[in-house]
Amino acid sequence: MNLTDRYLKTRKLTETICSHLQTEDYVVQPIGDVSPPKWHLGHTTWFFETFILKPYFMGYQEYSPEFNYVFNSYYETVGNRVIRTDRGNLSRPTVSDIYRYREYVDEAMVNFLCHEPSADVKELLTLGFNHEEQHQELLYTDIKYILGHNPLFPAYNKNYISPKAEKVNSDFISMPEDVYEIGFNGDGFCFDNELNRHKVYLSNYQISPDLVSNAEYLEFINADGYHDFRHWHAEGWDWVKNNKTEAPLYWHLIDGEWHNYTFRGLEPLNIKEPVCHISFFEAYAYAAWKGMRLPTEFEWEAAADQFKWGKSWEWTESSYLPYPGFAKAPGAIGEYNGKFMVNQKVLRGASEVTSPGHSRATYRNFFQTNLRWQFTGIRLAK
Amino acid sequence: MNLTDRYLKTRKLTETICSHLQTEDYVVQPIGDVSPPKWHLGHTTWFFETFILKPYFMGYQEYSPEFNYVFNSYYETVGNRVIRTDRGNLSRPTVSDIYRYREYVDEAMVNFLCHEPSADVKELLTLGFNHEEQHQELLYTDIKYILGHNPLFPAYNKNYISPKAEKVNSDFISMPEDVYEIGFNGDGFCFDNELNRHKVYLSNYQISPDLVSNAEYLEFINADGYHDFRHWHAEGWDWVKNNKTEAPLYWHLIDGEWHNYTFRGLEPLNIKEPVCHISFFEAYAYAAWKGMRLPTEFEWEAAADQFKWGKSWEWTESSYLPYPGFAKAPGAIGEYNGKFMVNQKVLRGASEVTSPGHSRATYRNFFQTNLRWQFTGIRLAK
Amino acid sequence: MNLTDRYLKTRKLTETICSHLQTEDYVVQPIGDVSPPKWHLGHTTWFFETFILKPYFMGYQEYSPEFNYVFNSYYETVGNRVIRTDRGNLSRPTVSDIYRYREYVDEAMVNFLCHEPSADVKELLTLGFNHEEQHQELLYTDIKYILGHNPLFPAYNKNYISPKAEKVNSDFISMPEDVYEIGFNGDGFCFDNELNRHKVYLSNYQISPDLVSNAEYLEFINADGYHDFRHWHAEGWDWVKNNKTEAPLYWHLIDGEWHNYTFRGLEPLNIKEPVCHISFFEAYAYAAWKGMRLPTEFEWEAAADQFKWGKSWEWTESSYLPYPGFAKAPGAIGEYNGKFMVNQKVLRGASEVTSPGHSRATYRNFFQTNLRWQFTGIRLAK
Amino acid sequence: MNLTDRYLKTRKLTETICSHLQTEDYVVQPIGDVSPPKWHLGHTTWFFETFILKPYFMGYQEYSPEFNYVFNSYYETVGNRVIRTDRGNLSRPTVSDIYRYREYVDEAMVNFLCHEPSADVKELLTLGFNHEEQHQELLYTDIKYILGHNPLFPAYNKNYISPKAEKVNSDFISMPEDVYEIGFNGDGFCFDNELNRHKVYLSNYQISPDLVSNAEYLEFINADGYHDFRHWHAEGWDWVKNNKTEAPLYWHLIDGEWHNYTFRGLEPLNIKEPVCHISFFEAYAYAAWKGMRLPTEFEWEAAADQFKWGKSWEWTESSYLPYPGFAKAPGAIGEYNGKFMVNQKVLRGASEVTSPGHSRATYRNFFQTNLRWQFTGIRLAK
Repeated sequence: MNLTDRYLKTRKLTETICSHLQTEDYVVQPIGDVSPPKWHLGHTTWFFETFILKPYFMGYQEYSPEFNYVFNSYYETVGNRVIRTDRGNLSRPTVSDIYRYREYVDEAMVNFLCHEPSADVKELLTLGFNHEEQHQELLYTDIKYILGHNPLFPAYNKNYISPKAEKVNSDFISMPEDVYEIGFNGDGFCFDNELNRHKVYLSNYQISPDLVSNAEYLEFINADGYHDFRHWHAEGWDWVKNNKTEAPLYWHLIDGEWHNYTFRGLEPLNIKEPVCHISFFEAYAYAAWKGMRLPTEFEWEAAADQFKWGKSWEWTESSYLPYPGFAKAPGAIGEYNGKFMVNQKVLRGASEVTSPGHSRATYRNFFQTNLRWQFTGIRLAK
Repeated sequence: MNLTDRYLKTRKLTETICSHLQTEDYVVQPIGDVSPPKWHLGHTTWFFETFILKPYFMGYQEYSPEFNYVFNSYYETVGNRVIRTDRGNLSRPTVSDIYRYREYVDEAMVNFLCHEPSADVKELLTLGFNHEEQHQELLYTDIKYILGHNPLFPAYNKNYISPKAEKVNSDFISMPEDVYEIGFNGDGFCFDNELNRHKVYLSNYQISPDLVSNAEYLEFINADGYHDFRHWHAEGWDWVKNNKTEAPLYWHLIDGEWHNYTFRGLEPLNIKEPVCHISFFEAYAYAAWKGMRLPTEFEWEAAADQFKWGKSWEWTESSYLPYPGFAKAPGAIGEYNGKFMVNQKVLRGASEVTSPGHSRATYRNFFQTNLRWQFTGIRLAK
Repeated sequence: MNLTDRYLKTRKLTETICSHLQTEDYVVQPIGDVSPPKWHLGHTTWFFETFILKPYFMGYQEYSPEFNYVFNSYYETVGNRVIRTDRGNLSRPTVSDIYRYREYVDEAMVNFLCHEPSADVKELLTLGFNHEEQHQELLYTDIKYILGHNPLFPAYNKNYISPKAEKVNSDFISMPEDVYEIGFNGDGFCFDNELNRHKVYLSNYQISPDLVSNAEYLEFINADGYHDFRHWHAEGWDWVKNNKTEAPLYWHLIDGEWHNYTFRGLEPLNIKEPVCHISFFEAYAYAAWKGMRLPTEFEWEAAADQFKWGKSWEWTESSYLPYPGFAKAPGAIGEYNGKFMVNQKVLRGASEVTSPGHSRATYRNFFQTNLRWQFTGIRLAK
Repeated sequence: MNLTDRYLKTRKLTETICSHLQTEDYVVQPIGDVSPPKWHLGHTTWFFETFILKPYFMGYQEYSPEFNYVFNSYYETVGNRVIRTDRGNLSRPTVSDIYRYREYVDEAMVNFLCHEPSADVKELLTLGFNHEEQHQELLYTDIKYILGHNPLFPAYNKNYISPKAEKVNSDFISMPEDVYEIGFNGDGFCFDNELNRHKVYLSNYQISPDLVSNAEYLEFINADGYHDFRHWHAEGWDWVKNNKTEAPLYWHLIDGEWHNYTFRGLEPLNIKEPVCHISFFEAYAYAAWKGMRLPTEFEWEAAADQFKWGKSWEWTESSYLPYPGFAKAPGAIGEYNGKFMVNQKVLRGASEVTSPGHSRATYRNFFQTNLRWQFTGIRLAK
């Protein structure tokens, strides 16, 4: 695919995801981790304007200095930024304003791409595509949170099709003690956190070919797993008690029957599906209760070609840390990943709402241990 | 005016106030005290549906049980209520949904009013009109907060006309020591908190015929009034320090010049206008710095026919307490006023955004001592 | 009594109150409202040193500049102050250090009082005596909180004698509508907040000759008074729910029987005693449940010679506000009362731990509506 | 050394550390991480009573059921526990009470040890000695915090001798890429978190033979390191801004000169000493500013026999995670380490206040990334 096609396809998918929304759905921010959908629309546009058009497209006229202020996210080096938790208070710019901004930047980008860009710019473009794909997934997760926490439980899309729930039910995969190579080594794009490729010594281990299902997780709930401190980290136990957590996010016990909010609305729980929307604390406690553990990210990667993945981001035991030789890029782009490498856990795989082709076996996703609004599940190891 | 006309006129004014809004402006709730405009639209409608149509209009079909849940406000006796600070997270029902709800209820109300209602119902209707008028003022104050805290400072209405700023500049009015009658005693409507009419003994006092202007308040700022604890209550001083308050709400010092956010957008400060959007703490401190004090609500009412009022709600020294013989009405309506009679201050008068004819000399408005988003000003006494 | 005797007697009583303590009891501060006993010992000493010895006793050598820093309380005009909520973190100066400080200042005071002081100084001395008496009561209330919140429930003094619990059980006292004179007008000492004496117009009212007893308050609890929002202010209802309040402070339901922590330790509840350690919110709710109300401070004072008082500070409906003509004294002494005149309620009477002779019928005590660690009770009016 | 001697020597050292304290110093808890010294005295005693005497010493009479309640710490399986942050509010049991408890338990332990205990009990005893040694270090760190945050800056011991400050100043140690064995493999005691010994593959690296000195850290401060977000993790940058951190804990800039609170009181900063009392965030930022990094715990251990350590616990880049094959012991003892293995960083080495012989090259200490009250320093790697 040429760059213009790739650009337009990426941009189009973002808007397709939003096509099921009402104007009001674009605006709200029920918790700090969730961004209003209109912010994602603006921020991904701001990325191309700021890092490609302004520095590299001679004669480009900035759309609006105010938009730079409003849609800058976490980049401390570029202008001021609106406090992350305050985005849901901004009714302006309106959704229409932002779609006009997208059109303006898209038109400029198409013009810019008439000429073959330099290798440096191509690299930035690829980063921009991958960046927008990350926000496509965030659009799904944030929209689910917004609608799923509305007391009316409106559907996002009544015809949304969940991935088929099937259990492999085969034995754990046995992996031999050895030195393994970990990290990206292909030709295409990877994030800086997948480098350097390096050697890791792994002891013998076994890893499940399957994710833990809702049925299996229900056994943990029914065995009073949420009320026995012995399965939990001390910090996880505090989290359970402070939040009075009793089940995964989006689960509702109605007249004695478990329901689950999905993109189609509130439905009886499908017990065959992988358990989803759990925190690291819950994943760890479940594994402890089973007398097993979570795999490290290295164990996961070393075995990844022996199982299917992609239905849920999978919590690993590994903390999110730099690989040997990791180096931050200079400037604003360099802020991309390194500054988050503390007090977060690595997730491997991909989820049903990850953009097609976005992830790979060396991909390192990461979140704090208490978060549940992402599509997060459990693969066991021992 | 007949009841149908009064009803339609009241309902129309609410919608006229909102006619300057974009859909997105209806949704957000930047602080807990502010409600999203769409909530006001729904809640005032819910009031007529709940207290008139459902109990008194035979055969009336409730619009939606979910709307009862969403638009109930502080009435503990009627169903569950959505937590007050959570309203800004609800993208549904949409603005269009709510306008449809208004149309449905309005049509039913017009049908209902074809027949002369009983005296009891007329009383509830009048309460409903006054209730909606209160929300009309809240719409203005909340919209101002929403747009005035947006970093783009959008105008609500570029053609909005502020009341003429003119100073009387005459002497303080002298009032003799005497027993005065306080409280409502006319024929029309009043709130329960204006009753009973009763006698109050007042010592000699003097009260200003004018409100304190921005120019006068600037002298206090320039005299470092915000940095001298001696003018402030202990709690007020904590408030100033914790909030780093340096000026009234909506004032911005830009390149050394004071600006003020108005319904027309950000403008240079008009120093002739009454100072507005200040807390009780600030009103008290200003008066203390001048060597004067705020009037009590009784002093205010006793002298009210000797000065003009209506440009700003005026903080009084009086705490909001029941008059002798005050009695709560039974049921949900009885929750209207009495339960707020603690830790709030009485404001007298009216503001530029009070609905026409809504206030009177015996009217008792009330807010907590730290709030500034209402149109609140200062009249001095000594 | 001459000034030296009065001084020594006052100082001695403070130390007698502390004579039942262990060294460790002097140190802790379980909540911000409670001060460590050793702080009271130091602060009352600091008062005489700062306002009498340093300005008026030629050649007086300050004991320690550090003590000025540590024992200053809320006086913003005098040096820096240690944050009020941080006092319990200070292990130094030790209790012995502070007793040495007291001895040093007492010796200097006795020398100073060998010569008849000026009228101005006598006035400050009298203020100092009354100030120390206020801290004597705070010592009792704070010690009760410290020991009463220890899981071992240690006794303060196993031989402590509570006032005799007797009910008058006579009818409510009827008071006629009239203009009454309110405020201090004797020869002796009064606080600035008791002035000016002024006229207040009161409607007919009735006031109970007795305080509400534990037995009566139990009826409110047993009638589910803590779970029915209709009796409560909106703010009081939030307070009940946030604190899960179910009974007065120091009450414990043990094996189905109510117990009460007293200065003698944990005891079965004496149902004949006046209910004590309740917030204004609870006093108001109890009165509302009874279909009555709390008296205003003016109603209380006008009838005070017709009933006995002194077993519990009595919550009134009145907010703590200045009397007509109230004027702050200049300087640090002027900070004494006026700056607290917002968002607090007046309490009248005295409690069993008020120092003998300290209170009077015009005395105005005051606290925030949520506080319970003082000895606070209920007298009804209607 | 026989078991009785080892027991008595361990117990004695705890009391020697406390011998410099005033009674009041034993009581306070300025922050949640700090425990009152008297709590440490009681808790270490409780440990021997609960895990040795009660289960294994026939006929042993528990000292007091209340002490079990008060001195239990984080062990969820054993009785209730006093909320960790509430310990500083407890004036009882008094310091004397607790010393009596120690005597009682010590006497019982000496009697118990007259007979050679079983291997199981010996293991528990060794755990008890190591547990008490950990609290000996905590006594130092907590006492330093208590006295060092008192505005009078009292000395703990005017004759306290700090370790000699000397720089090796030799080159970084070069370590070759290889598979290294990590974890404990000696004969003596180790904690469960040091097992299993296992293989780790390390790339080439270099590690400093020295700790970063105060002089070197001052360069970072003077280069405005605390005001440049680029050196910091995102979470670290928030921490700096929220806490307005400008220097290590205990540093005070007085009249332009840096001072440091030591056990001897406030002193001019000794720039030759290792920088101490910094958070992980600061250690990371310093290393980033130098263009280097912190070692992993594996790099540290693999090189530990080539440099001196013991002056400061050394922050590593490694998160605190289980080694391969790590298994929790069953029961209360099993809660010891495993439940803390999330969101904490490993520290290696020992500090000047670590009990003699307590640490070793495989020892894994661990704390949250924001904590500074421990003696924590920096060793660089690249």
